[in-house]
Amino acid sequence: MLKTQRKPTVPIEPIILHRWSPRAMTGEALSDEELMPLFEAGRWAPSFANSQSWRFIYAKRDTPSWSTLFGLLVDGNKRWCANAGVLVVMVSKKITDDGKRNITTHSFDAGAAWENLALEGAKRGLVVHGMAGFDYDLAKRELGVPAEYQIEAMCAIGKLAKKETLPEDLQAREVPSDRKPLSEIIMEGTFRQ
Amino acid sequence: MLKTQRKPTVPIEPIILHRWSPRAMTGEALSDEELMPLFEAGRWAPSFANSQSWRFIYAKRDTPSWSTLFGLLVDGNKRWCANAGVLVVMVSKKITDDGKRNITTHSFDAGAAWENLALEGAKRGLVVHGMAGFDYDLAKRELGVPAEYQIEAMCAIGKLAKKETLPEDLQAREVPSDRKPLSEIIMEGTFRQ
Repeated sequence: MLKTQRKPTVPIEPIILHRWSPRAMTGEALSDEELMPLFEAGRWAPSFANSQSWRFIYAKRDTPSWSTLFGLLVDGNKRWCANAGVLVVMVSKKITDDGKRNITTHSFDAGAAWENLALEGAKRGLVVHGMAGFDYDLAKRELGVPAEYQIEAMCAIGKLAKKETLPEDLQAREVPSDRKPLSEIIMEGTFRQ
Repeated sequence: MLKTQRKPTVPIEPIILHRWSPRAMTGEALSDEELMPLFEAGRWAPSFANSQSWRFIYAKRDTPSWSTLFGLLVDGNKRWCANAGVLVVMVSKKITDDGKRNITTHSFDAGAAWENLALEGAKRGLVVHGMAGFDYDLAKRELGVPAEYQIEAMCAIGKLAKKETLPEDLQAREVPSDRKPLSEIIMEGTFRQ
């Protein structure tokens, strides 16, 4: 696991604190042995009535489907994702498997699975970088995603490279981000802005 | 951290594998020292443009706001949540702080923060149990949640008790749940059911 300079308000699990979203990747492919533990981690997330809304559509570089997933990205993400090992489109199912109930928390639950995936990657020293900068409608069409599923986000997974391998403007952004103070995200008893 | 009998497809981070959602809690209160690390873990989740949509409205037992949050729950959850130490309503902000952009991933990102919270609790041997079984509309009204925020889910946090302290029907359910096979949640190249 990589360590960052982040300072927590109170001590927490190091993988959670130090997980961040680099962009510099080596352009190497990932083996199934390297990739599957990330999906496996996603698999164990909690969900409404254990409905497990999450689905991961992935493409490895140097395979026929790589260009399809890569083609969904906005130009700003194509610049650095060209060196990813794997691209993933994360999707959630909006209804239960018996088709009888809507899953109110389908996106929220998929987000829990996504965080597991990202944490497992961070633990292994891999780059895992989430993205909303892609064409959601095109993703739905090109990947044949049925109406009862919702496209949530994409992520790039790869082997970490030195930040000097990035274009200059992206080098400046290659640093773990900070967060709002804890006091701004917790509220006792009632909502307060 | 508690260990479960769960068998992963491939080895992963133990906290992720063994986190589960017990119901048996002792009815003890939690101190800030015990509670705050869970919110702190949520704080470090990744989000769209670091927008950090997540907010946590909480009530500790034996405080005036406890009855407000407890009153939101469906009867089936009241039965065992009566022994929680803390109840939390998890909320996401749908627009950026400058009010200029919708956050497409506000629920998904809040789910990532929720998983961090749950994992930090699991690591500390606490019960953290997510719930959709509560009155979402009433929560919005009673807690004064503004229109630009969305209620996502609730969770109960508490100290683990023996399962024998639960009503008999809940004792039978007090076991870590399994998951769909990995092959059902990952798809290479294109969507496949």
